[in-house]
Amino acid sequence: MLNPAPILHVEDNEDDQFFLKRAFDAAGIINTLHVVDNGQKALDYLSGSGLYTDRQQYALPCLVILDLKLPRVHGLDVLKWIRAHEEFKTIIVIILSSSPLRNDVDTAYKTGSNSFLVKPLSGDQTTRIARLIKEYWLENNEFPSVSGMVEPIDRFGIKPPKLKE
Amino acid sequence: MLNPAPILHVEDNEDDQFFLKRAFDAAGIINTLHVVDNGQKALDYLSGSGLYTDRQQYALPCLVILDLKLPRVHGLDVLKWIRAHEEFKTIIVIILSSSPLRNDVDTAYKTGSNSFLVKPLSGDQTTRIARLIKEYWLENNEFPSVSGMVEPIDRFGIKPPKLKE
Repeated sequence: MLNPAPILHVEDNEDDQFFLKRAFDAAGIINTLHVVDNGQKALDYLSGSGLYTDRQQYALPCLVILDLKLPRVHGLDVLKWIRAHEEFKTIIVIILSSSPLRNDVDTAYKTGSNSFLVKPLSGDQTTRIARLIKEYWLENNEFPSVSGMVEPIDRFGIKPPKLKE
Repeated sequence: MLNPAPILHVEDNEDDQFFLKRAFDAAGIINTLHVVDNGQKALDYLSGSGLYTDRQQYALPCLVILDLKLPRVHGLDVLKWIRAHEEFKTIIVIILSSSPLRNDVDTAYKTGSNSFLVKPLSGDQTTRIARLIKEYWLENNEFPSVSGMVEPIDRFGIKPPKLKE
């Protein structure tokens, strides 16, 4: 019953990458976890360009876990880009941010985030969040169809991903 | 930490109303659960009209749990109406439907559903879903600001709620 697609974790902090990966393992999440460390790479991954042209290795994710304060392209701009593409309009995006500023939370939902979680402060809490993501989203939620590739565009003033020569 | 706002359950089937209420109680959800049995009443509740003009008694919900096959106004039209109103654009809406038809799931997400759950077949499963709703949404998710009232409109060909004389 688990969705076999990978999960895309967009996070620049190496500690946060490590703790979420460890928590996913502890929770028994078997989906491949792909990590990208800036917003531009998230766009590259989704549009299948840059380092991520191989869709077999970098399949479209069933879930995007998205930090907000990201280098190069801010998390909210990544979310805008995702929702501006018909192909990704329905992909499940969970914001995982360290600061639940009221304005960030509201803007995230207005931009189309499905959910907004605050980064846990301890390993135990991270495992709890990972378990909830597994039980709620992966085991019980019905996922939308997500398929197809998309041409990178320059909407929202975001530089299109560089294509390999 | 629990969000004190009520939860609005939009469901015409009395058994499903009963089982969800019982499961919410078993899961220890303390939020008031308001139930409306057709789509028009959901619009009335949210817009504070019809039977629901008293905002103290019928406060705006933090969560809408929405069936799809509803009398008078279909669940997807309720969702469209919710997302067409700036005041409710960000309110968390979970579809809880008995049939996960691919088209319904995709349309629900395109229309702005946060999540899509399938109605459980047993009491135990319903309690499990209630517990997950509590742990994931009520205990860990950051809610958007939801406030204000809205004038009923005739968008999407939906009859505006009748006002009391």
